[in-house]
Amino acid sequence: MNDKMLGVLGGMGPLASAHFMVRLTQLTPAARDQDHVPAVLWSDPRVPDRTVADPTGEADPLPWLLRGIDGLESAGCGAIAIPCNTAHRWYEAMRAHARVPVLHIVDAAAAELRGMRTGSARIGVMATQAALGMRLYQDRLGALGWDCLVPSQDEMDRLVSPAIALVKLNRMADAYAPVIQVVQSLAARGATSVVLGCTEIPLAIQAGPAPDLPIVDTVDTLARAAIAWARAG
Amino acid sequence: MNDKMLGVLGGMGPLASAHFMVRLTQLTPAARDQDHVPAVLWSDPRVPDRTVADPTGEADPLPWLLRGIDGLESAGCGAIAIPCNTAHRWYEAMRAHARVPVLHIVDAAAAELRGMRTGSARIGVMATQAALGMRLYQDRLGALGWDCLVPSQDEMDRLVSPAIALVKLNRMADAYAPVIQVVQSLAARGATSVVLGCTEIPLAIQAGPAPDLPIVDTVDTLARAAIAWARAG
Repeated sequence: MNDKMLGVLGGMGPLASAHFMVRLTQLTPAARDQDHVPAVLWSDPRVPDRTVADPTGEADPLPWLLRGIDGLESAGCGAIAIPCNTAHRWYEAMRAHARVPVLHIVDAAAAELRGMRTGSARIGVMATQAALGMRLYQDRLGALGWDCLVPSQDEMDRLVSPAIALVKLNRMADAYAPVIQVVQSLAARGATSVVLGCTEIPLAIQAGPAPDLPIVDTVDTLARAAIAWARAG
Repeated sequence: MNDKMLGVLGGMGPLASAHFMVRLTQLTPAARDQDHVPAVLWSDPRVPDRTVADPTGEADPLPWLLRGIDGLESAGCGAIAIPCNTAHRWYEAMRAHARVPVLHIVDAAAAELRGMRTGSARIGVMATQAALGMRLYQDRLGALGWDCLVPSQDEMDRLVSPAIALVKLNRMADAYAPVIQVVQSLAARGATSVVLGCTEIPLAIQAGPAPDLPIVDTVDTLARAAIAWARAG
């Protein structure tokens, strides 16, 4: 009965992973409930802050992440998706621990970028300070041939980090302006598309008019990768 | 680590239960991720149609519902919420099977109605044909003193049932007009508030201007009951 259930390691934040479940449903071609992807969402918002530098002891998210993976595997899940970019800091440890495949959110974004054929390898990346600091996107997309532009430290401090915090407070409308300003700044520097490499940022972008360059929404790209896994039989 | 996780038996439909997770998050007073309710969503859309009369064998949803309850209990959940009104047809069997409390979606709606003090016991109820046929709301709310008005058979056939089907196809905007027409018809017959006793109907109502009488959204009321359970510590 539980063949091929998708495991979703979420709660980071809880709104982003709930939104991932919405998008997983909306992006699945389906005419009835039974055509949708069976999934279990492990939404444990008690996972300690993923953005702290060198967390140890009670501040260490890794035991919580592995506990979620165990729970999803016990439930019969056949693969795991993690709709939190910053949690991919522990990707190798999670992959080594898991008995089932763990989809990588950056690989899902890379697949979408390849399909977009923007004619330029120069892309913008917006993410948490922690995800940029560990070069999550820069290194993994760089190895695939993309040149990643990231916001300046001033833009991170004034615009991106406060916008992510506003989304976590359900203040999407207030988060829109700072996020769109950074998208435009990256475009002015030559980015031909912008990757929203934090699952909170798409929630801010959707609160107002769409920007005028292609956006890679990592909630949607991870959902599409999960649907492809489920469909692959 | 998994004290007091909420179990959510969902997938019926998958969009309604994903939306329940969104509302669970938005209705929780929280200043940071860690203040939110830890939860596991079992979203198995393969559960056979809940609206079939006298289902047996492979068409019987009950084994699937009990499998989900077992899965949620294995994951460490301490209570179960089911954001599908029609699935409450099997409430007694699920409650008898579960080792943890199972919240009842009609009791959550009754708590909200009590708090509204509309000054009248006459309320409208919109639900699936199956939920109305089994008198899910009429009997349980009737026993608590409410007089439930339900749509006519013609309104069910022409408006309510097609609107629910449209939501399941992600066509919220098209589902709005038929749903609001039935709300107005119930109001014209004397209802002082309307209970949306199908978790798909709130998704249709939100696609347009709010109706001008109080609405009891059973997605939100069940989410509030779940938050109260989690907070009761």
